[in-house]
Amino acid sequence: MKITILLSGGLDSTTLLAYLIDSGHEVACLSFDYGQTHIRELDAATHFTNVYKVPHSIVCLPGVFAGSALTRDAEIPEGHYTDTSMRATVIPNRNMVMLSIAGSMAIQHRSDAVAYAAHADDRGVYPDCRPQFISVMREAFTLCDWNILKLLVPFENWSKRDIYKEAMRLGVDVAATWSCYTGGDKPCGVCGACSARTEAMEGI
Amino acid sequence: MKITILLSGGLDSTTLLAYLIDSGHEVACLSFDYGQTHIRELDAATHFTNVYKVPHSIVCLPGVFAGSALTRDAEIPEGHYTDTSMRATVIPNRNMVMLSIAGSMAIQHRSDAVAYAAHADDRGVYPDCRPQFISVMREAFTLCDWNILKLLVPFENWSKRDIYKEAMRLGVDVAATWSCYTGGDKPCGVCGACSARTEAMEGI
Repeated sequence: MKITILLSGGLDSTTLLAYLIDSGHEVACLSFDYGQTHIRELDAATHFTNVYKVPHSIVCLPGVFAGSALTRDAEIPEGHYTDTSMRATVIPNRNMVMLSIAGSMAIQHRSDAVAYAAHADDRGVYPDCRPQFISVMREAFTLCDWNILKLLVPFENWSKRDIYKEAMRLGVDVAATWSCYTGGDKPCGVCGACSARTEAMEGI
Repeated sequence: MKITILLSGGLDSTTLLAYLIDSGHEVACLSFDYGQTHIRELDAATHFTNVYKVPHSIVCLPGVFAGSALTRDAEIPEGHYTDTSMRATVIPNRNMVMLSIAGSMAIQHRSDAVAYAAHADDRGVYPDCRPQFISVMREAFTLCDWNILKLLVPFENWSKRDIYKEAMRLGVDVAATWSCYTGGDKPCGVCGACSARTEAMEGI
């Protein structure tokens, strides 16, 4: 199958890239510059598309997202990923926007499917990672064009720990992925994304 | 209700703007510069947001849409709007992309709903104007955020002729709207959008 992947350069989507290649699919990656503080993640995304030798497009979305700590000057909350405070990091409707643009590009490039790396641990914080959202978007993808487009979410019921284990199995260079929400040279270690990543790796 | 409207500056969406204001709603408009040949439509959109004194945002989507006659150098097909040849003017997944960005902005601006002017005559050409697409997007809007967002499509079962009659009733300055797919100084009179517009107005 020919698949367009949403690739941020973080652990989840990079593992998805490796997973789909390992499954024998032809993939192309799509990333977004939406004004995120952690724009550094795009370097990681570019790195991995070079490593895996797959096409990579970066779409700019100037001014579309503004109401989240991830794009404002506001403090990025510290603490556990599933804490309610972490909901400040929700970017309004981000996944629908990114999936819809990926859908457009998939149709233009005659891909059969779009894939993204939503997983079970995301559900408490991000409304657009919930199973019912994924289900309805999957249906929308079958109707948005005269041809049917698939939406693949293979990690939908996996924990981040499961994804990390899969990354290990696939030999993903996890150290080169970027999850941290801050824009520093090194991961801060205390934001929600860092906490979740650390917990997923503990004891493995 | 506070409503974010997709406004192209054409007959349908301009009438939707007048219709929702007439119904007593507070509205804000959103338009897109996506590289359309008929970029001139944005002048019409701006004109009407000034006339009706409502907020107006224009979002740029550089490079997102490329596979349609409306954004390429390819010839825009002439002829009747519902002809199969007109499907060359389908911009892949355009409505999902525009609705999702409108949804994001609606959440950021605390709007209750997003509205767009899909109508019954569009169904044969544009897959993303079909009732089943509208229905599933309406459901996606209830799930994309922790708060429920509404999707309003009041002209869903109207013909373009019905919309024109409503425009007359509401005193919309129809001559100032722009429907033509070409970028000339005057409407070409032969593209699908011009044909549909002329037919809607005939004999009224």
